[in-house]
Amino acid sequence: LKIFSLSSNRALAQEIAKFIGVELGKCSVNRFSDGEIQINIEESIRGCDVYVVQSTSDPVNDHLMELLIMIDALKRASAKTINLVMPYYGYARQDRKARAREPITAKLVANLIETAGATRMINLDLHAPQIQGFFDIPNDHLMGVPILGDYFKTKNLYKDDIVIVSPDHGGVTRARRLADRLKAPIAIIDKRRPRPNVAEVMNIVGNVDGKIAILIDDIIDTAGTITLAANALTENGAKEVYACCTHPVLSGPAIERIQNSNIKELVVTNSIVLPEEKKIAKIKELSVAPLLGEAI
Amino acid sequence: LKIFSLSSNRALAQEIAKFIGVELGKCSVNRFSDGEIQINIEESIRGCDVYVVQSTSDPVNDHLMELLIMIDALKRASAKTINLVMPYYGYARQDRKARAREPITAKLVANLIETAGATRMINLDLHAPQIQGFFDIPNDHLMGVPILGDYFKTKNLYKDDIVIVSPDHGGVTRARRLADRLKAPIAIIDKRRPRPNVAEVMNIVGNVDGKIAILIDDIIDTAGTITLAANALTENGAKEVYACCTHPVLSGPAIERIQNSNIKELVVTNSIVLPEEKKIAKIKELSVAPLLGEAI
Ligand SMILES: Nc1ncnc2c1ncn2[C@@H]1O[C@H](COP(=O)(O)O)[C@@H](O)[C@H]1O
Ligand SMILES: Nc1ncnc2c1ncn2[C@@H]1O[C@H](COP(=O)(O)O)[C@@H](O)[C@H]1O
Repeated sequence: LKIFSLSSNRALAQEIAKFIGVELGKCSVNRFSDGEIQINIEESIRGCDVYVVQSTSDPVNDHLMELLIMIDALKRASAKTINLVMPYYGYARQDRKARAREPITAKLVANLIETAGATRMINLDLHAPQIQGFFDIPNDHLMGVPILGDYFKTKNLYKDDIVIVSPDHGGVTRARRLADRLKAPIAIIDKRRPRPNVAEVMNIVGNVDGKIAILIDDIIDTAGTITLAANALTENGAKEVYACCTHPVLSGPAIERIQNSNIKELVVTNSIVLPEEKKIAKIKELSVAPLLGEAI
Repeated sequence: LKIFSLSSNRALAQEIAKFIGVELGKCSVNRFSDGEIQINIEESIRGCDVYVVQSTSDPVNDHLMELLIMIDALKRASAKTINLVMPYYGYARQDRKARAREPITAKLVANLIETAGATRMINLDLHAPQIQGFFDIPNDHLMGVPILGDYFKTKNLYKDDIVIVSPDHGGVTRARRLADRLKAPIAIIDKRRPRPNVAEVMNIVGNVDGKIAILIDDIIDTAGTITLAANALTENGAKEVYACCTHPVLSGPAIERIQNSNIKELVVTNSIVLPEEKKIAKIKELSVAPLLGEAI
């Protein structure tokens, strides 16, 4: 068993290797002068079960090509199995044709990974569980909910009157799972546009008045949805608002929005690296290394 | 027949469309806030023969993913055939395992393109003609030599005593082709490292003394090879040195090296866009639009 890290998330790969009790495999990932990726695997892997840790986070295309080139190199060097540990699956939101002539990039990516030669995938909170079906190779689908739930337990919030809130209809199942762990009820933000070109109205289905609300989503990207949801909760009488997600994409105005929001704390995992400038005091990062390590 | 341009080389796509007498198809290529590519095809292409113009030049991974996503979208929108016009094929220099455990990225890219759903490829001066064999779909392989040759004819250099020079052993066939068109002899730069850690010696096989030398290569990247070759030619008595190539990658120190070299003029094609800062007076750009247009 050998574990290699590519460039998206070395700290996590290191932690996973430590959890399992091996050293990270030696390989170098460089760029030629013209930007092309050069990968060198610096130890024999013939006949080995190889694990490659890579999230296809921003810059997604570079991280994806690194992964595909690494798989190609491993395959040609006679690895026995090529197992991807891909906590964050980029392009997961392009998982269906919402309009005519749209690509389904999440499926394309699955095809590319299989074509390159991967033999097994380990993912964490795929945006839609259907993405598992985009693969013909075995796919282990892990969830961040237990980690997020355990953290909220340590805060002893559960003794208060808490409510778990899904910021949209798509996330209700996830909210239900967290609610089960925290023995709490759920509520749902029900966005509705009364007429075209009129601002959306945020109705809340369920009771949040006087409660501690915990918003949960899989991905927080520009943080528009989550901060608007947090406002709606306060307006409807929630006494404190927490938020959590598995994948902190946090692009564009996200950090500023969170900083200026009424969210007391945002709990995320290290499926995507938080660069220093995004490490604000409000954001708490939990590690998925033990979870991924167990799955290996 | 519809022609679409992606973002690497819109000017060339426009020229090709004009040559053929059609308008470019409408599609938009954007980025989401987190850097993921979003493509929208804005007209029906059901049952059409579609041509997509894209060079996988720097940023190679972004340009390649654009192309793959576009192919996916076209396939799902029921295009009859999906034909790629890819004048510059990125990663072409990773076409073999030069060392143990190296990837063969040029083959990987071929597999990715086929998996996405392309049905035909049109390429220009692939770094190695063997790359054609990496594809199972039809591949038209065009050459820049006629265009470069015709340009040198207009300079009326051929009345002088000229010699066509290959900067390395790999390029002799290409030099021979240009020499045939210009009715000139060839010479070869024969690099040799006498002992490890000693600078290379540039021998010249063939006679360049008193002649006008024209160096030809497929790709000029950092311009190290070509400018050293030009020096060697002058040292061996060449009275003027020209250089030409099909693909002006021109990364890193390339422009500075060419500017400071004894190369009188560098003739390139528009297979790769030359950004404004690389458009120095010494560089002459020829269009491959008619050549590619004919092949469509
Ligand atoms: N990287 C992205 N950033 C923002 N929106 C996206 C991204 N990728 C896909 N989408 C859009 O998000 C929607 C799908 O998200 P969801 O409804 O949450 O599954 C679709 O309309 C997509 O066009
Ligand atoms: N993008 C690149 N830039 C510079 N060198 C490269 C690049 N891709 C591959 N190579 C190297 O170039 C050599 C192949 O070039 P050649 O011998 O001209 O076919 C191999 O040693 C490759 O490792």
